[in-house]
Amino acid sequence: MDLHGGNIYKHLRESGRQMLDYSSNINPLGVSKNLKKQLRKNLDILTTYPDPYYIELRKSIANFNDINIENVIVGNGATEILFLFIRGIKPKNVLLVSPTFSEYERALKTVKAKISYFKVEEKKDFHIDVENLIEKLKKNNYDLIVMCNPNNPTGKFLELDRLKKLIDEVDRKKTLLFLDETFIEFIEKWREKTALNIKSKNVFIMRALTKFFAIPGLRLGYGLCTNENILKKMNSEKEPWSVNNFASMAASILLSDKEYIDKSYKWIKKEKKFLFNKLIKIKNIKVYETETNFILIKLLDRRAENLCKKMEERNILIRNASNFKFLNENYIRIAIKDRKNNKIFLKCFAQCLEVKE
Amino acid sequence: MDLHGGNIYKHLRESGRQMLDYSSNINPLGVSKNLKKQLRKNLDILTTYPDPYYIELRKSIANFNDINIENVIVGNGATEILFLFIRGIKPKNVLLVSPTFSEYERALKTVKAKISYFKVEEKKDFHIDVENLIEKLKKNNYDLIVMCNPNNPTGKFLELDRLKKLIDEVDRKKTLLFLDETFIEFIEKWREKTALNIKSKNVFIMRALTKFFAIPGLRLGYGLCTNENILKKMNSEKEPWSVNNFASMAASILLSDKEYIDKSYKWIKKEKKFLFNKLIKIKNIKVYETETNFILIKLLDRRAENLCKKMEERNILIRNASNFKFLNENYIRIAIKDRKNNKIFLKCFAQCLEVKE
Repeated sequence: MDLHGGNIYKHLRESGRQMLDYSSNINPLGVSKNLKKQLRKNLDILTTYPDPYYIELRKSIANFNDINIENVIVGNGATEILFLFIRGIKPKNVLLVSPTFSEYERALKTVKAKISYFKVEEKKDFHIDVENLIEKLKKNNYDLIVMCNPNNPTGKFLELDRLKKLIDEVDRKKTLLFLDETFIEFIEKWREKTALNIKSKNVFIMRALTKFFAIPGLRLGYGLCTNENILKKMNSEKEPWSVNNFASMAASILLSDKEYIDKSYKWIKKEKKFLFNKLIKIKNIKVYETETNFILIKLLDRRAENLCKKMEERNILIRNASNFKFLNENYIRIAIKDRKNNKIFLKCFAQCLEVKE
Repeated sequence: MDLHGGNIYKHLRESGRQMLDYSSNINPLGVSKNLKKQLRKNLDILTTYPDPYYIELRKSIANFNDINIENVIVGNGATEILFLFIRGIKPKNVLLVSPTFSEYERALKTVKAKISYFKVEEKKDFHIDVENLIEKLKKNNYDLIVMCNPNNPTGKFLELDRLKKLIDEVDRKKTLLFLDETFIEFIEKWREKTALNIKSKNVFIMRALTKFFAIPGLRLGYGLCTNENILKKMNSEKEPWSVNNFASMAASILLSDKEYIDKSYKWIKKEKKFLFNKLIKIKNIKVYETETNFILIKLLDRRAENLCKKMEERNILIRNASNFKFLNENYIRIAIKDRKNNKIFLKCFAQCLEVKE
């Protein structure tokens, strides 16, 4: 089983087939026309090294988030931001809100951190119980809490008032909170809901242009933080020129592309509802409500592995979610795409589930 | 002073001027037409994640170097390869053949390695004295030797027969040799001269497409090594998807672009000779012979800083080389470019040097 979704290459190599990829969570609108136009025009920017300080890039991101450029750090995808943070901070005792994205644990292992887990319960439909989480912080001395919001793979989002309570406790305990907000732009009115609205020196926010702007192949992530000390530690670990010139150029074009952004909001609102309402009518599965662009599903009568295989035979990739901590062999995660593909997916999914195991 | 050459952005920001950049060492032929054509055609590959195993990319590199795909590791520029190697190996006691590229030392500091230096002497015109180096290895217990060949900033190259002696001693002492060959393609008949011709499990070779193929803004480096254990350690530190899809696609196009490669050989042969022969006629400087696409120069009557400033006023960037270990305030490094620019450079350079300090 693959550690992550989206490995379409293996299938292309092994069977020569192009797959419909419901295993990775990318905006189906694809690469924006504006970006493509500018890329075509500016191919020669490859002949120069990137700006080692990425001033223009960081300015665009600072403007987009209405903060100072000093509070922005950029990376080769969110992944570099995560690894830089962990290598910079070198946490010893970490609480991981789980099930969640597996790279946090991989990054933490490179610095040999002790990892504890706060289990988000299935019986609460994977909603985070903030009161319990705060209790756990009070009783223990963690130097870092890692949380993904909205969370991958559960799709659940902790609203600002409840997040505020958590951050108050983080501030009181003088611990740190690493908050992965790489899927937040898919949430309606996300600007009112981001942790950026809560001023705290103990919070580090990770974002990416990967998912919302459909450029996972270009690699551009960033971090937002008002704690100079954290940024200084990260920069001391940072490799020069890690963001390529195309990615560096893309930010100002994409972040100001109102048309693409509006179209995306309309799409996600409509398709999330459509897909969810169709899915809940299918027997023998449990569908968890989502706040973002993917849906977690529990199979009640079969193993994820078997279903994934059946779907693959029909040229559709879905994410076997059984290797997420605290999930089991019955979980899958699917992306939300455009209407045409969602219909193809639904038809195939229903057919595969009709066949008794 | 900048840590590296090529920071044209600072000047563009501060004075609005486009500079002629003689401070970074990039093939003046620019981005190959074939690559540009394929990039324009394939902008939509950005919507998928890179292949986490980079099979096609590593195949192209393996073919180019006539080795097995298992012996190839790829990275976001040579820089990622360097940092992965150092983080993977975690050397404790390292010998750095100096003066050389400063990132080795920065990478070594992230793992708190003890660094010793083998000084390459100016009185020997910066040629490496292999016998002395071997003596030093015999007397000490280093777990890693780091060497750049051809060396930045001296332009000197250690030929295969002498490199063989060094590697024999490395093998005898069971230490490791990290060999940076990122400038080797500029050397005539480099395929007969690369360390790849010497079979040793203790040698790691670093390469890049950055310089020879003029794509420093795209970020693509690689490592060649037959030691599975080293590659395994590096992969355990590796962040997924660090090479973007355009860079990943570029390798097969560039490495098979015979026309671009042949044209580049012709250019470097001609312009190296032209620029060197003109430079040695200029008074009050010492010009060191080079095997690659940049030239180290010692100013005999003034400080590098003053000259760099004067050249900048005339819109030409040169590399103040005084922050390389064992060099002093009198050294500069310049790139070799095309005839038109070399003439502009020479005229301006001679003018600046004519003015008495």
